[in-house]
Amino acid sequence: MSQILDVQEILVYDLDSTRRKAKKVFREMFENLCESIQQIDGKVFNEHFWTRDKNGSLMSTDNRNDATYVDRSLLNGNVFEKVGVNYVAIEGELPAGMTFQKSGALVTPEADAISSGDVKTPYFATGASFVIHPYNPMVPIAHANYRYFQIGNPAQPTYWWFGGGADLTPSYLFQEDAIHFHQVHKEVCDKYDHSYYARFKKWCDDYFFIKHRGETRGIGGIFFDHLNNSNPQKILAFVTECTQAFARAYMPIVERRKDMSFTEENKYWQRLVRGRYVEFILTSDRGMRFGLESGMVSQQSVFNCMPPEVSWTYDDQPLVGSKEAMLKEVLKNPPEWV
Amino acid sequence: MSQILDVQEILVYDLDSTRRKAKKVFREMFENLCESIQQIDGKVFNEHFWTRDKNGSLMSTDNRNDATYVDRSLLNGNVFEKVGVNYVAIEGELPAGMTFQKSGALVTPEADAISSGDVKTPYFATGASFVIHPYNPMVPIAHANYRYFQIGNPAQPTYWWFGGGADLTPSYLFQEDAIHFHQVHKEVCDKYDHSYYARFKKWCDDYFFIKHRGETRGIGGIFFDHLNNSNPQKILAFVTECTQAFARAYMPIVERRKDMSFTEENKYWQRLVRGRYVEFILTSDRGMRFGLESGMVSQQSVFNCMPPEVSWTYDDQPLVGSKEAMLKEVLKNPPEWV
Repeated sequence: MSQILDVQEILVYDLDSTRRKAKKVFREMFENLCESIQQIDGKVFNEHFWTRDKNGSLMSTDNRNDATYVDRSLLNGNVFEKVGVNYVAIEGELPAGMTFQKSGALVTPEADAISSGDVKTPYFATGASFVIHPYNPMVPIAHANYRYFQIGNPAQPTYWWFGGGADLTPSYLFQEDAIHFHQVHKEVCDKYDHSYYARFKKWCDDYFFIKHRGETRGIGGIFFDHLNNSNPQKILAFVTECTQAFARAYMPIVERRKDMSFTEENKYWQRLVRGRYVEFILTSDRGMRFGLESGMVSQQSVFNCMPPEVSWTYDDQPLVGSKEAMLKEVLKNPPEWV
Repeated sequence: MSQILDVQEILVYDLDSTRRKAKKVFREMFENLCESIQQIDGKVFNEHFWTRDKNGSLMSTDNRNDATYVDRSLLNGNVFEKVGVNYVAIEGELPAGMTFQKSGALVTPEADAISSGDVKTPYFATGASFVIHPYNPMVPIAHANYRYFQIGNPAQPTYWWFGGGADLTPSYLFQEDAIHFHQVHKEVCDKYDHSYYARFKKWCDDYFFIKHRGETRGIGGIFFDHLNNSNPQKILAFVTECTQAFARAYMPIVERRKDMSFTEENKYWQRLVRGRYVEFILTSDRGMRFGLESGMVSQQSVFNCMPPEVSWTYDDQPLVGSKEAMLKEVLKNPPEWV
């Protein structure tokens, strides 16, 4: 533990500028990616600014200067059926007793959790998150979320870390898409640390695992959390490149699949896949749980990630040898794509 | 604690016959209610028997004599879009370390939980559960589930209890339906204990509360758990009448609403209401959690309760003064119906 704190103390000087830069990086991701989505779709986002009223309750506001955070939603577009985007850069106080699971943390295996303690604790958080539900079942669902977090005295935080990742959830598997998405992320990882891709790919498969179904949510990508084992500016540079890589990794897939023909059966299968997505979000996702428990953002923003139309049926196991069964095989045994 | 154990020890003689009778009562509920549903719908259930293979994995079987439990599903009926029914009468061993929350238990406030302990513990469980999703949005979703459970030596169990209840989740509120449903259940409660209805009505509102939404799942009914504060035969008599009351409480509502006209907007609102239903089941329902963690029943049977077609959108708050807003008002402030 002492070693980590030592490192963090030395880096205090850097953290104030890290904070400002991270805020800017995630804002740029938010703006640029929304712009790409609108260009490909032809429809524009609805934007909502959120602030707190005198009682501390969250309310939407027309005055963007008052806003503590912003969300955007695009519904029933030409290419995308529902896109939910949140951007946050917020200072505040965590409720007493709030705990962050550190399972899988890179640096502090001694500690199993970071707790906000018995009293309200200052925090700073900034991040951007995208959940993209395309209309065409041949286009995979995409999720990307990068964030920076610090707890404690803003000038000398007790803890700071970066987290995030990007992953795909296809209804129909196209190997070349999976390879492309992983390849783009691997290249960014390799520039910074040759161990990153293998670790973050596995972390992604492990994190987005639907335990009760015994299968992953999708074909993965990368995921990491509590990344703080190096100079914060260096980690920020890595995360910045990740935020930029997402469009390169995902948009070409959208372009080549969005006009493919499909049947009502394909669309129904997509709704079943979305059901699994909902199961993961509501039973296992830490971001969702944090959203629901912290009161940091409104219900609308927390549920901005939910799929639009979803189905469950008695038994959704596909026929042996079908395309749907091929996908299940991959979800049960995640392959190495690159 | 001693008092309870004393009571339970005295009643050991009764428990073996209670077990046999409870099994029969829930089987009758299962058969009779399925028959009523088929009669009103015109379509029949698919039935699946489940057993364990040599490795202990659950598998469906054609041989009903081998079955450890049975489920039935009715999909895309004329009146019901999806009905999921499970009937269980099963002996086995609980995994080590499994814990039953006793929050709200009637009899043993000292103990917060019943644990299966460090080793596998024998149990016996029997029950029937129904989740009924009608097609017409003017007909409420109905849920009914009654069960008997005992833990420990089958001849002299450490704990035994009854639990269950029945409740409605309307998309559109008809006061007379809510009053009728509650009235039928109140009459049964009043026959056995004048405190039952008030306590079990409140327990239902409290249990089926979607914390993150600040609203109840529906208009309630009755709910109780860990009921063991009296002669088991007397509690069984009460529970038996509850299982019989459900058809009287619900079927007349189905009859008078199933042919009402509705719009695409009404149908969409129903799918949003079902979204809240899913949120409750996946974040809060103990039965679902037990199903997922205990491995007692298959995935298909656990998810047999899920709604068929579900929607989420960015903001599902209804317009002020609308029928949908009237429903929300009731969900935020549960009234006394009778």
